[in-house]
Amino acid sequence: MPTIFAAAATDHTYVLLSLFIMLAAAKLMAEVFERIKQPAVVGEILAGVIIGPSVLGWVAPSELISILAEIGVIFLLFTVGLETKPQAIFRVGKRATIVAVLGVALPFVAGYFIAIAWDGSFAEAMFIGAAMVATSVGITARVLGSMGLLDKETSRIILGAAVIDDILGLIILSLVSSVSQGSVSYAALAKTTAAAVLFTVFVALIGSKIMNRLGPSVERLKVSKPFFNIGLILCLGLSVASLYIGVAAIIGAFLAGMALAEATEEQTKMHRLTSGVTEFLVPFFLVSIGMQLDLAIFRDASVVGLAILVTIAAVATKLVGCGLGAWGMTKREMAQIGVGMVPRGEVGIVVAQIGLGLGVISSHFFGAVLFMAVATTLIAPPLIKLFYSEDRDRDGTEDVIVQTDISEDFTRIG
Amino acid sequence: MPTIFAAAATDHTYVLLSLFIMLAAAKLMAEVFERIKQPAVVGEILAGVIIGPSVLGWVAPSELISILAEIGVIFLLFTVGLETKPQAIFRVGKRATIVAVLGVALPFVAGYFIAIAWDGSFAEAMFIGAAMVATSVGITARVLGSMGLLDKETSRIILGAAVIDDILGLIILSLVSSVSQGSVSYAALAKTTAAAVLFTVFVALIGSKIMNRLGPSVERLKVSKPFFNIGLILCLGLSVASLYIGVAAIIGAFLAGMALAEATEEQTKMHRLTSGVTEFLVPFFLVSIGMQLDLAIFRDASVVGLAILVTIAAVATKLVGCGLGAWGMTKREMAQIGVGMVPRGEVGIVVAQIGLGLGVISSHFFGAVLFMAVATTLIAPPLIKLFYSEDRDRDGTEDVIVQTDISEDFTRIG
Repeated sequence: MPTIFAAAATDHTYVLLSLFIMLAAAKLMAEVFERIKQPAVVGEILAGVIIGPSVLGWVAPSELISILAEIGVIFLLFTVGLETKPQAIFRVGKRATIVAVLGVALPFVAGYFIAIAWDGSFAEAMFIGAAMVATSVGITARVLGSMGLLDKETSRIILGAAVIDDILGLIILSLVSSVSQGSVSYAALAKTTAAAVLFTVFVALIGSKIMNRLGPSVERLKVSKPFFNIGLILCLGLSVASLYIGVAAIIGAFLAGMALAEATEEQTKMHRLTSGVTEFLVPFFLVSIGMQLDLAIFRDASVVGLAILVTIAAVATKLVGCGLGAWGMTKREMAQIGVGMVPRGEVGIVVAQIGLGLGVISSHFFGAVLFMAVATTLIAPPLIKLFYSEDRDRDGTEDVIVQTDISEDFTRIG
Repeated sequence: MPTIFAAAATDHTYVLLSLFIMLAAAKLMAEVFERIKQPAVVGEILAGVIIGPSVLGWVAPSELISILAEIGVIFLLFTVGLETKPQAIFRVGKRATIVAVLGVALPFVAGYFIAIAWDGSFAEAMFIGAAMVATSVGITARVLGSMGLLDKETSRIILGAAVIDDILGLIILSLVSSVSQGSVSYAALAKTTAAAVLFTVFVALIGSKIMNRLGPSVERLKVSKPFFNIGLILCLGLSVASLYIGVAAIIGAFLAGMALAEATEEQTKMHRLTSGVTEFLVPFFLVSIGMQLDLAIFRDASVVGLAILVTIAAVATKLVGCGLGAWGMTKREMAQIGVGMVPRGEVGIVVAQIGLGLGVISSHFFGAVLFMAVATTLIAPPLIKLFYSEDRDRDGTEDVIVQTDISEDFTRIG
């Protein structure tokens, strides 16, 4: 009899089973890593490596999982945006720009020359360079957010630089793709760049003002949880708009959050509602990254060498490039900004996949870049935790959060 | 240039655009319906009719959307379970059983005879009967939950009856499917039934005790929001288990919520976190139902007649059957229980799809059942609101909720 149901339910059952395994594995590893005082994100990514095709093969990457992962990171950046007042980003705008530019230039050059030295073609080398550029700010945001340090100046610089980084990455990828196809239309390139810059600047400057103006009207809506629902719509809407313009969806989500950062007095409620979604969906994002890792590359010694070299270069160039971009701040702050920009995560993977899709990069370069993307994402969180640990103790921000939770419970009991 | 990105992003862009349209349309219609004092769920289902293939064709049903819809209704029933102490259900167990049995028998017989009268085959008539049986408790739960009336005795009876209803539906569907295939294995049927009953009773009886026992250990976990995360895992886990056993995933989700209902003092926090997920995902469930409606059946006058007849019978038999099951309560309470069991929603659609898949029911019966499933789901909420409206005024439950929210904001400000 269950076979009758199976006919209708097989797909759903299998999908829900996959989601259950991913979620349970992620939370289990998060717990283990918290206990050994390591960042939970690392545990969750490793959970993906373990249950993914590389080790146990319980869950395979799929379109559905990648969509859930994308929604997860969209909500993560939306949450981060909610804690970011636009003024706080504008204030660090100049420094963030320098950090982004240096943090893009050095990795690109390093990637280019490593590939050339490894007998890569010109087009291949350009693509490896481009894959080294992207920063996956979701990882950093998750670690800093869980430490309660998103309002530090260095966190603002990292967030601002990540937005600029993404636009620069778009330009480089466009350029590299055109070059590898043999034709560059500078007019089209200029158009794409202008659209991306205009969209970002416009939403960052005007979004917040519009939402502040609309705030009272939103509160008058009859629908339940009006601010949260408007936030959901704005978040998805700007994410889609970002994709159409060519930048990552998370840029739109971040801008949506930022537009709402000042608009509402109901921050706590909004946060709690949003963090429910985040807590549920972000594990799929982290596990997905881990599942991408292909440990089979370790069977080929030459690829291992390449992968390790690319990874070291990826870490060193962001660290030095972004650190130098923060010249004039303390050494500690320079280091904080440097490590915050190290994770390549899903962005590096997407660039490598585009290169593979165009037939420009060979499979061993693809394997090495994939390894680099996951490895930098695993290396960065412990470093971030290390370089930021004293700040947390000094601020005691975590205590504040705990207090809020307790008083909420009292509210309920009382 | 954007074409380069398009290669990698098209699918995601299209999917995210669809989700954005569904969410925005659902919330817009919810707002409109709240303003004209009608239930928001009806607006959200109608949003699906409008943007779906029947009218505008902006969004089409897809595997991904149906999974998101399923996760949405899973979380909805999980939330309802969180507000349901097991004892409260056991106390009404006997009455809920009678309500379920009569609410299953009458619609089945009515569906059977309508199909026979309409020149349907024996197998076809059995299937139409089976499709009339299922109750989509998600709709009722949503309406009662938004009115703050889930703790009323009649709400408990509806919830208990819906669980039993689903098990009876499983048995009937199994039987009908076997008969239509020409062979009935009573041994297999007994096994399925036993598994479904044992699973439900076991989890309902023991789940809560286990979680109460584990509560202090859960609180000691290092992972962030431990209760919520354990809840998520339990919710998905029991949903998957339910599907394997043959009952609907929402039964498992409801049982998971109920198991946690007593375990934590952190109800408010848990609720807020869960309701964030619910608020985001339930619209996909409601819009999906609306998108299933095929208005093309109205081109064939004889199907229209059949559809309307089936719908009237579906409403009348649940109303009378379930109402009579509550004999001994006040007439008002009998009516409340009756209307609460009317919506067929996704369950009726699934049964019809299985019949179509087996080649047992013809397309005009399928169209009529589809219409009935959506129509009953649209008719019930206003009736529920009407029959429960006085209770809400008397209880003033909504005021309590508003108060909690305000004190939370003060906690933050203070």
